[in-house]
Amino acid sequence: MIRPLLVLLLFLSSLTAAAECLTRGTGDLGIVIERASGSIKVLDTTRHEVLFHIEELGDLSHASAVYSRDGRYAFIFGRDGGLSKVDILCGTIVKRLVQGGNSIGGAISQDGSLVAVSNYEPGGVKIFSSEDLSPVAEIPATPLEDGEKRSKTVGLVDAPGQRFAVSLYDTGESWVIDMQDPKAPAIRRFTDIGRLPYDALITPDGRYYITGLFGQDGLSLLDLWYPEKGPRLILENYGKGEEKLPVYKMPHLEGWAIAGHRAFLPAVGRHEVLVVDMSDWSQVARIPVHGQPVFVMARPDGRQVWVNYAFPDNDTIQVIDTESMQIVKTFQPGKGALHMEFTPRGEEVWISIRDKDEIQVYDTRTLEQTHSLPAEKPSGIFFTSRAHQTGL
Amino acid sequence: MIRPLLVLLLFLSSLTAAAECLTRGTGDLGIVIERASGSIKVLDTTRHEVLFHIEELGDLSHASAVYSRDGRYAFIFGRDGGLSKVDILCGTIVKRLVQGGNSIGGAISQDGSLVAVSNYEPGGVKIFSSEDLSPVAEIPATPLEDGEKRSKTVGLVDAPGQRFAVSLYDTGESWVIDMQDPKAPAIRRFTDIGRLPYDALITPDGRYYITGLFGQDGLSLLDLWYPEKGPRLILENYGKGEEKLPVYKMPHLEGWAIAGHRAFLPAVGRHEVLVVDMSDWSQVARIPVHGQPVFVMARPDGRQVWVNYAFPDNDTIQVIDTESMQIVKTFQPGKGALHMEFTPRGEEVWISIRDKDEIQVYDTRTLEQTHSLPAEKPSGIFFTSRAHQTGL
Repeated sequence: MIRPLLVLLLFLSSLTAAAECLTRGTGDLGIVIERASGSIKVLDTTRHEVLFHIEELGDLSHASAVYSRDGRYAFIFGRDGGLSKVDILCGTIVKRLVQGGNSIGGAISQDGSLVAVSNYEPGGVKIFSSEDLSPVAEIPATPLEDGEKRSKTVGLVDAPGQRFAVSLYDTGESWVIDMQDPKAPAIRRFTDIGRLPYDALITPDGRYYITGLFGQDGLSLLDLWYPEKGPRLILENYGKGEEKLPVYKMPHLEGWAIAGHRAFLPAVGRHEVLVVDMSDWSQVARIPVHGQPVFVMARPDGRQVWVNYAFPDNDTIQVIDTESMQIVKTFQPGKGALHMEFTPRGEEVWISIRDKDEIQVYDTRTLEQTHSLPAEKPSGIFFTSRAHQTGL
Repeated sequence: MIRPLLVLLLFLSSLTAAAECLTRGTGDLGIVIERASGSIKVLDTTRHEVLFHIEELGDLSHASAVYSRDGRYAFIFGRDGGLSKVDILCGTIVKRLVQGGNSIGGAISQDGSLVAVSNYEPGGVKIFSSEDLSPVAEIPATPLEDGEKRSKTVGLVDAPGQRFAVSLYDTGESWVIDMQDPKAPAIRRFTDIGRLPYDALITPDGRYYITGLFGQDGLSLLDLWYPEKGPRLILENYGKGEEKLPVYKMPHLEGWAIAGHRAFLPAVGRHEVLVVDMSDWSQVARIPVHGQPVFVMARPDGRQVWVNYAFPDNDTIQVIDTESMQIVKTFQPGKGALHMEFTPRGEEVWISIRDKDEIQVYDTRTLEQTHSLPAEKPSGIFFTSRAHQTGL
């Protein structure tokens, strides 16, 4: 009797272990980065609950995340070059590797099969299988003049057609990497895009790759529908502009808000949100705001943009009506209001408040807070709906 | 020894029953309606596999579906007034009720808490809890002159701000139903929108509610950002137009394709796709096509639109390049090419081929077929990414 019972018990315990994972949909889940402790929390946006706390993810300052196409796995890019695949239904780290010395972000390919990381050190892009993080391709950046180092890579995004776009900080280039054949990446290099590209974004339709420049005013625009036309400079006063100002923090470009045919973007160093007509990339308005904007995020319907600010104004959030271009609400949720993420259909926005160790949830109709969740020094919030969006 | 063993076995069997459900992400799943057999299949879009076959869903001709915000549950609206909540992780019907005599579609509220159904008989909208399908509100349509019947309701969609929009076929109205307080629906009624509205759509940003008119030319446009301005007639020649033509099938309006600032829409009765500038709703082009278009669907990046046709041309699909407005491919996948659904980031399109009892999958870059899946007389295909989109 002992032997069958033992077998039963072993079988039972294996089932019990499996039962610690959740059987549930993933469409309403997300994660928040806890930067100081190198951990994340898994969030349920329907019940406004924390489902899991996952530790030992390395240095998560400036960390970002993308999702597998099924929404179950988050790929987390740490500043220390760490790449972690996390199972948000089980609350476990599936695999973690330190793939570079200093990484600045990543992307997942259109078909979900490839995860790419842009590195400062060694400068270049590494591409891994999303299945097991095994290496697929390594794309070294242009060597610097000393012949030893290579350019830092920044602004890595996915693009339609199984492509990635990335910019090279030191050498002023944008590269489009076609991964249709994973064994033979096809790279198209655009040089002289402008001085010291520091970040980039791709428009939600995946057409325009826009790079911010640290070394000069203006932005570099590459139309991925017509790459043969090459990059061109737009918004030639974007940056420090005619009067030079101290810049406390370069704004995040992925924080561009697109509402209808207009883009709302953070001015560099100025207390302004700029409004640009995307049909000809002309500036149509400047909206005076509370501080130096960091993220300018559009509610998914484009009717509002929410703005947070650099230190010393990072205790404040403002909401702008995109039609009247008026500020409709200014409030102080707490010091270190670092990041905002809208639920996919826009009824709520979740805001990380670092110095209160909490996430605050706001109803975007009433503009009132409805919930609060605990998190240790929270920064970036990433919902699984990003799995379905180009460039996020 | 018998009693504990029995308890163990019972516990084991309960675990085994639970284990029949899948522990996996829902972001890459979908369903296909099998209209003749009143069944659906659950689809895995990553592995191109059928996961479950679910029967006894009633009359599924013209059936449609929406998803819970977690992506786990599909709400299926049958022509027979059936409303079914299906668990796509377990392959089971959670609940099914026949809520009306003849229903024409449904929607899920912005926050995912409410499911609404528009009925022909009795004419009106019924609203249910998405949790257990318990009744929440009943909104009867305007009575007809005979005093007995009420207007049929059509073109029901969700809108931002926890609202629904619906049109009344017999009385020529559009209603906006605000469900912020579920116990007290606030209804705003717009009369004289045009004769015999038969279907409607909401633009992906949730701003414009556009109703097709069976009884006259033109379309009714309601700007939900400024409802006080009321509806107005746009595209005044839209419909049969100056030369009257036989119409084999009124096109589906939810098949409007929006690419940048342009909409591509099926002409009524004509072998044409119309191109409209959404900034002023003027017609900018007519593209000659193979037959009377039914669905005109944009690839998510807006670079292509795919078109299928009414009988006798329903064996053909055409692909239009939205920049050149040229047809780049015409092919015959089989008779009864009824519905097309793009994967959320656009790398594939899945097409129901009724008379071949299969779904064909195409790579949207090469325009070649890559996979085939079995399905019995398939019609509508609905992927879980719709959970994150307004109006789908």
